[in-house]
Amino acid sequence: MTAYDDGNIFAKILRGEIPSHRVYEDDDTVAFMDVMPQSPGHLLVLPKAPSRNLLDADPAVLAKLLPVVQKLARAAKTAFEADGVFIAQFNEAPAGQTVFHLHVHVIPRYDGIALAPHSGTMEKPDVLAEQAAKLKAALAAG
Amino acid sequence: MTAYDDGNIFAKILRGEIPSHRVYEDDDTVAFMDVMPQSPGHLLVLPKAPSRNLLDADPAVLAKLLPVVQKLARAAKTAFEADGVFIAQFNEAPAGQTVFHLHVHVIPRYDGIALAPHSGTMEKPDVLAEQAAKLKAALAAG
Repeated sequence: MTAYDDGNIFAKILRGEIPSHRVYEDDDTVAFMDVMPQSPGHLLVLPKAPSRNLLDADPAVLAKLLPVVQKLARAAKTAFEADGVFIAQFNEAPAGQTVFHLHVHVIPRYDGIALAPHSGTMEKPDVLAEQAAKLKAALAAG
Repeated sequence: MTAYDDGNIFAKILRGEIPSHRVYEDDDTVAFMDVMPQSPGHLLVLPKAPSRNLLDADPAVLAKLLPVVQKLARAAKTAFEADGVFIAQFNEAPAGQTVFHLHVHVIPRYDGIALAPHSGTMEKPDVLAEQAAKLKAALAAG
């Protein structure tokens, strides 16, 4: 397995070198909106600890990750009145991974609306900001 | 959210009422081959505890689940000489969920080979048995 490279874009976001529409943060985890959403409200959940993907992650980090993914999936379903939620996580390029810091996709799904391709266009910052605000309100409401 | 219904096919597999090509079991978790694989070596990881999907699961159950998914993803990559691993988890029918007991898909990916549709055909039992044996050997080798 290739080693972790801290020059990846998510490491830069975690260090605050690149802005993001952040919706959640705790001691171990950060979540922000995906700038190329496959569906409205698509967000990403990342452990702060460096690992390339699931395969090389510390199991103790993983133990903390999925309960946070759950929290955000529930909040996204509420915030965006979604009909379902798709959780996806890609390991290595042949599986679809494009940024090599472990991240989990939380993708709200809506009746009768197909997923956009992963290589979609950039969403407008205003739209992402509004979605992030809705999500944070849903998280705060519990 | 609709309540958990213990008549679902995975609950029957967990109770041993329906056979499966089981590859892993611990106190909290079971894994077996998907009978309609989207890619060779496609397997499912389930908590034994009943929940409809990620949205209504006990966070303590989720904390134990992802480290086991990791273990199986690593073993699958080795056993099937996969180039990557796709992890997918569907919540509610509009997101693609078809069996309503929480399960995580571990799907080996291979360079240049597309995923089969989720509603694919049944794999031959002999093929699944051989894959399960390979996977158990990889797990045993650590």
